[in-house]
Amino acid sequence: MSDAQSQTLAGPTGEVDTSSSKGRIIISIDAMGGDRGPNAVVAGIAKSAKKNPAIGFILHGPSSDLKRLVSRRKVLRGRVEIRDAEGVVRMDDKPSQVVRHGKDTSMWSCLESVRNGEATVAVSCGNTGALMALSMIRLRKIPGVNRPAIAVLWPSRNPSGFNVMLDVGADVRADEEDLLQYALMGASYARNGMKLDRPRIGLLNVGTEENKGRAELKAAHDLIEKAAPGAQFDFVGFVEGGDIPGDVCDVIVTDGFTGNVAIKTGEGTAKLIGDLLKEAFKFSPLSRIAALLALTSMRRLQKRIDPRRVNGGVFLGLNGTVVKSHGSADATGVAAAVKLAFQLAQQDLTNKIKARVASATQSEEDDAEDNKVAE
Amino acid sequence: MSDAQSQTLAGPTGEVDTSSSKGRIIISIDAMGGDRGPNAVVAGIAKSAKKNPAIGFILHGPSSDLKRLVSRRKVLRGRVEIRDAEGVVRMDDKPSQVVRHGKDTSMWSCLESVRNGEATVAVSCGNTGALMALSMIRLRKIPGVNRPAIAVLWPSRNPSGFNVMLDVGADVRADEEDLLQYALMGASYARNGMKLDRPRIGLLNVGTEENKGRAELKAAHDLIEKAAPGAQFDFVGFVEGGDIPGDVCDVIVTDGFTGNVAIKTGEGTAKLIGDLLKEAFKFSPLSRIAALLALTSMRRLQKRIDPRRVNGGVFLGLNGTVVKSHGSADATGVAAAVKLAFQLAQQDLTNKIKARVASATQSEEDDAEDNKVAE
Repeated sequence: MSDAQSQTLAGPTGEVDTSSSKGRIIISIDAMGGDRGPNAVVAGIAKSAKKNPAIGFILHGPSSDLKRLVSRRKVLRGRVEIRDAEGVVRMDDKPSQVVRHGKDTSMWSCLESVRNGEATVAVSCGNTGALMALSMIRLRKIPGVNRPAIAVLWPSRNPSGFNVMLDVGADVRADEEDLLQYALMGASYARNGMKLDRPRIGLLNVGTEENKGRAELKAAHDLIEKAAPGAQFDFVGFVEGGDIPGDVCDVIVTDGFTGNVAIKTGEGTAKLIGDLLKEAFKFSPLSRIAALLALTSMRRLQKRIDPRRVNGGVFLGLNGTVVKSHGSADATGVAAAVKLAFQLAQQDLTNKIKARVASATQSEEDDAEDNKVAE
Repeated sequence: MSDAQSQTLAGPTGEVDTSSSKGRIIISIDAMGGDRGPNAVVAGIAKSAKKNPAIGFILHGPSSDLKRLVSRRKVLRGRVEIRDAEGVVRMDDKPSQVVRHGKDTSMWSCLESVRNGEATVAVSCGNTGALMALSMIRLRKIPGVNRPAIAVLWPSRNPSGFNVMLDVGADVRADEEDLLQYALMGASYARNGMKLDRPRIGLLNVGTEENKGRAELKAAHDLIEKAAPGAQFDFVGFVEGGDIPGDVCDVIVTDGFTGNVAIKTGEGTAKLIGDLLKEAFKFSPLSRIAALLALTSMRRLQKRIDPRRVNGGVFLGLNGTVVKSHGSADATGVAAAVKLAFQLAQQDLTNKIKARVASATQSEEDDAEDNKVAE
């Protein structure tokens, strides 16, 4: 861990130096486990390498295959280190099995590079449950964090075009302390990943009145409200499902069960509307002409809400950041996940969250002391 | 209650006779409490009256205002009985206050007509929380039902164009027994309100594997699976958020917290896409022309997913059915809620749910007896 820390300290120029090779930020990439195989992953990192000369890669998977794929891309020359790992975590593998018997897999190897400090962020398109279980075991939780969370960006009416939502499925439960930690981690993510100085945090509920909802939500409301000034975010209180694509806040805090159902409902609804739209345009000769004329507008809209553009759930609360790309990600999707990983590494997100959680824990302890004195 | 029952018995012709006046089915209507006031409500019931000669209305609110509004609509002549109620439940009134001090309100009076058997179904555009609290107190729960639920129709890929989802907000909690009752009530609703002989029931979770999710969901899975053959529905097991607008099942069972977040997320996403679509069409002269040409196609799509077409959450599990219309419903929305109320009254939904819950409770007791004998 001291290795990892030394690699993420700011250098004398004020720049973050997270890599050992040529001042590049090194991202650890799991080449296997995605639906489209290592081809799509290598094509994706080639895209990233072209756009951003400051990224270097450690690529994990069967070395003979990977060498072949990488050698075909000129832009990757001198930018990729390959680590041989013959095993692959499949989408239907059980997390507990992977934790016990997955040492030879590319996923394990990918996390190992973050664990030993060679890379700051790991990216994988593989099995989410297994990736979270392995990350917990290998990277371990930040002191003070009880449950790590998965955060995603979600298309919204905000100027940035997106909101952050967490947890969307790391854990099906969350008590008030967990929800407070999600608020702190989500605020750090929004500040560093979305460049929002003072993110607005909302707590997801079934109504905005303070007397509504489950008991742990009322308790969390108070905890988050109290932490807001010290942690430099604005707490807007309870928000509703309709605010997830809205503009009343930047970060939506919820438990992993509710968050997971919400994003899948939103995705499913968007997909249904998209398909109905296509049908509508095919209905008559006139609507076919309209479709032709509307092509550019439609493409612009599609780009605006294209999930590939914001590909990547981020695991927060661990000693090291892990970006979980969609299993079905193509080269564009993988490149988006790498871009996100780069930003978070550059901002040194992990250590910022560590400091934030430590300071909140400290101030809670101080409060407890104060209360004791007051009694 | 015996009154109410005698009113919903099938007549000698096999037709359901739920009214005392001219063989019409009587719907009790709360004229007040919606965002658009009694004007929209009276316009809505006039629309319904025109389309369906078999509906009669009892209308609740300040009688002088209502008389004036009703007398302007020829089609309502002889079809509306007005009940004077001066009080109005406001959108921000607390349910507990309304229960204690709301005796003079149109909402109370509206439910009273169902309670005393003059009408089979109540329709209100008012405050959901107050309407549920009053319905629980005045109509009371069906024996064997622990928590009543709110069910909504949701645009989906199914041939009918819709799915049923419940609970979407009657209660923020639900244990395995509650979820079983939701499955039974949802199946009855789908059978009678959507004419599906053998509805397919899905239980909402964060994954479809049987070992996933919260403990009460695993227990509910087993209870519902066991009840399926006797209650004549097919249980498809766990479903995910993406299946809410999908076609793998007809009824989605979940707790009121998750269900409420899910429908609001879906609505918000649909609205965001609709607004972005409008923007896209305004972008350039070419896209404006496209918009013009696409007008009919767009209208067709809009109609397909127009929430006003399926306006009405239905309160299930009470002695009498209550249809909660959107607070912002216009005449079209109110007419849709009345149409739904008519269908459910015609099918005698309340008594069918009663029978279904009683028989499930009985078979559970039988099982307990069997187990005793086996021991």
